Amino acid sequence: MAVAPRPGFSRQLASEFVGTTGLLIAVVGSGIAVSRAAESDAIALLIHAIVVGFALITLIAALAPWSNHFNPAVTLALWRSGRVEARRVAPLMGAQIAGALVGVLLANLMFGETWLAIGDKPRAGFGLWLGEAIATFGLVLVVLATAGRRAEVVAWVVGLFIAAAIWFTSSTSFANPAVTLGRVVTDTWSGIRAGDVPAFIAAQLAGAWGATAWVSWMGKPTSLDS
Amino acid sequence: MAVAPRPGFSRQLASEFVGTTGLLIAVVGSGIAVSRAAESDAIALLIHAIVVGFALITLIAALAPWSNHFNPAVTLALWRSGRVEARRVAPLMGAQIAGALVGVLLANLMFGETWLAIGDKPRAGFGLWLGEAIATFGLVLVVLATAGRRAEVVAWVVGLFIAAAIWFTSSTSFANPAVTLGRVVTDTWSGIRAGDVPAFIAAQLAGAWGATAWVSWMGKPTSLDS
Amino acid sequence: MAVAPRPGFSRQLASEFVGTTGLLIAVVGSGIAVSRAAESDAIALLIHAIVVGFALITLIAALAPWSNHFNPAVTLALWRSGRVEARRVAPLMGAQIAGALVGVLLANLMFGETWLAIGDKPRAGFGLWLGEAIATFGLVLVVLATAGRRAEVVAWVVGLFIAAAIWFTSSTSFANPAVTLGRVVTDTWSGIRAGDVPAFIAAQLAGAWGATAWVSWMGKPTSLDS
Amino acid sequence: MAVAPRPGFSRQLASEFVGTTGLLIAVVGSGIAVSRAAESDAIALLIHAIVVGFALITLIAALAPWSNHFNPAVTLALWRSGRVEARRVAPLMGAQIAGALVGVLLANLMFGETWLAIGDKPRAGFGLWLGEAIATFGLVLVVLATAGRRAEVVAWVVGLFIAAAIWFTSSTSFANPAVTLGRVVTDTWSGIRAGDVPAFIAAQLAGAWGATAWVSWMGKPTSLDS
Repeated sequence: MAVAPRPGFSRQLASEFVGTTGLLIAVVGSGIAVSRAAESDAIALLIHAIVVGFALITLIAALAPWSNHFNPAVTLALWRSGRVEARRVAPLMGAQIAGALVGVLLANLMFGETWLAIGDKPRAGFGLWLGEAIATFGLVLVVLATAGRRAEVVAWVVGLFIAAAIWFTSSTSFANPAVTLGRVVTDTWSGIRAGDVPAFIAAQLAGAWGATAWVSWMGKPTSLDS
Repeated sequence: MAVAPRPGFSRQLASEFVGTTGLLIAVVGSGIAVSRAAESDAIALLIHAIVVGFALITLIAALAPWSNHFNPAVTLALWRSGRVEARRVAPLMGAQIAGALVGVLLANLMFGETWLAIGDKPRAGFGLWLGEAIATFGLVLVVLATAGRRAEVVAWVVGLFIAAAIWFTSSTSFANPAVTLGRVVTDTWSGIRAGDVPAFIAAQLAGAWGATAWVSWMGKPTSLDS
Repeated sequence: MAVAPRPGFSRQLASEFVGTTGLLIAVVGSGIAVSRAAESDAIALLIHAIVVGFALITLIAALAPWSNHFNPAVTLALWRSGRVEARRVAPLMGAQIAGALVGVLLANLMFGETWLAIGDKPRAGFGLWLGEAIATFGLVLVVLATAGRRAEVVAWVVGLFIAAAIWFTSSTSFANPAVTLGRVVTDTWSGIRAGDVPAFIAAQLAGAWGATAWVSWMGKPTSLDS
Repeated sequence: MAVAPRPGFSRQLASEFVGTTGLLIAVVGSGIAVSRAAESDAIALLIHAIVVGFALITLIAALAPWSNHFNPAVTLALWRSGRVEARRVAPLMGAQIAGALVGVLLANLMFGETWLAIGDKPRAGFGLWLGEAIATFGLVLVVLATAGRRAEVVAWVVGLFIAAAIWFTSSTSFANPAVTLGRVVTDTWSGIRAGDVPAFIAAQLAGAWGATAWVSWMGKPTSLDS
């Protein structure tokens, strides 16, 4: 989504790495904090949703001058819609996944959890997969529909969408393959069982593909506010 | 509220369909999620209000390039104030109602509820009807007063208004005939008894009519920020 | 704060009346709703703060083309700083107070409370008066410091300030003589004992005077974003 | 971050003093209020995070025409990146620390606590120091990355970052040496033991230094939205 300035590609990779690190610190760190402090599942998930949404707004707006996807599904959708060059897709995704892993390690360390663990929290079933498909459809839809508008509009729309989708989907809206992979290596509130990851990612990619196709049919939106 | 570009009308209908689908997924999905997680009515309604408000902001901002009413009362008010052509009103309302039904089905399905049920939650009485009239008066007032301003201003004002009105009205602010109809076909937290729908919609239309008349008397506001 | 267009003064009065009506519906309506639903004082006040903040943002942004003080302390401060004509101060304050009373009546009626009651909730003491002075100092400071900037910036700053001040002041931040008067005529959660009103309003005016003097000493800020 | 107008330096100092006073009233005042009202640690910290985030947004946006760092770590980072003159650093930090102390006194007084006390709340350990380093790294990163953009974008990004970081870091994100010093002189919920302050400030400065270095390596971002 970053358009100007056009920095060297190494800066884009660094931005994706740092941003996705920050995102996973927010996801896993807030998960640990709420699981310790909240005596109610609803309060825990409410706080988690607000924290993840606010963190996304912050990271997307601040890192906009360099690169701010932080999500392989978004990078793929932007490539499919002609906004990212094909040869850059794999490196960007690599930086995102590396950042996600480092973010989880830092969150584990900061809160005194085993710094590298394997989560065993089961997350599977038709309802949850439908949830991931819907969440990622919506996320990619709002990203593509706001691409080219002012950076903070993109930031707001993405952050608030995820905060809401954490509640209105059955899967609490991972909606991001790098986040999904990162959440394997923590044995805390936000973890996921490794064996449940492939189906989650498949559902996410299906949703992203659907949104890309729909926006393509609708026609590229004219930028409204820049 | 979408002004530019002026896409084919089929795109506007598709946008109303998808947006209202998303709105009802948020309304009914968050309703199911909070009723399962929250042990307190206040926490449940707080989360529901935040999720619906954030979803509205997201959908109105993202789909602004095409069409973003998602509400027959809004479409009628925009027609009365000369912003929508008469022959487009019925198709737009049809797309909204169809989207609402599909959204409820998807929410039911995603959370493992009966995919098509009939709610029996009673919602009636003078206080609630006054609540719906006040909620829809306020909603249409802020829509007409911000029409023509930047898309995200409209989005913020509408989303935050509804989030607040869910609490400050006695009826939890349906304020939308398509949403009201959709909420009939779910037997979950956000459902409504079919027989209570006509009075709700009548109160909503009365409120919308009042706001349209008031803004018409005030004179069309000059756009402040575009 | 509304600058353009310059409507007839009757429109300004109507805007102040309707906006203050809406504000008091939000204050008193949310107060009744939270006192019924919340089993915890903290949850009740959290929801109240969010609802009042969001309602203020909505009302200030939407009614900006006409007039959006909704607060005699703000009108007085804008007059002292040369932004409102002296002969308009009294009528504007009258419209605000009338709107406040109508808003409380509508909230009482909507929730099935006695439509006109006299609150007996004691709110007095040095700490609370200091709270009102600090709250109104802050409110008038942010209003004067953002005067002339885009309407939604003013709206955001005021709404978020009040939402925060409801918690960080000892008096839950009435910060508004019209709101204070309106809250006399309800015997519900947000009511105030009539005899405690004069000291509250005196503290508010002291805070408003202090902020006006401070901003005057600082020099009129150049508009940053319009 | 304030760029225009360029007021006399005494006005900048006054703005830093008043803004940091307001910030500490919000931090300590909300801390006292939540510790009295909330029966749950999670609810208390949720409210505190929202109040501090909203207060920061308000203060940064409103005082932008004069000076709005309110944080010695930010002032140092802006000096290192060439945005503040060296000879102004110490006076600005002095104004911030003085404002912090006055803010804590006012909060203590307003809520009827001992007006000047010494907190004994222990806050130490590797996890918390890592938390402070991460929090201040993130804060300074978003400040430098948004420097030069519209005042309210800076305000939003900083306020939402801190609101989120209060939850996603193990130390509840002081991230500000002036705030840390101020929180020594209250014996309430948000207090800190005097002996724990040096390590907190050292961790904050380490984080600020890291973010300054990283943004310097990335290259000064072009302003996106002004």
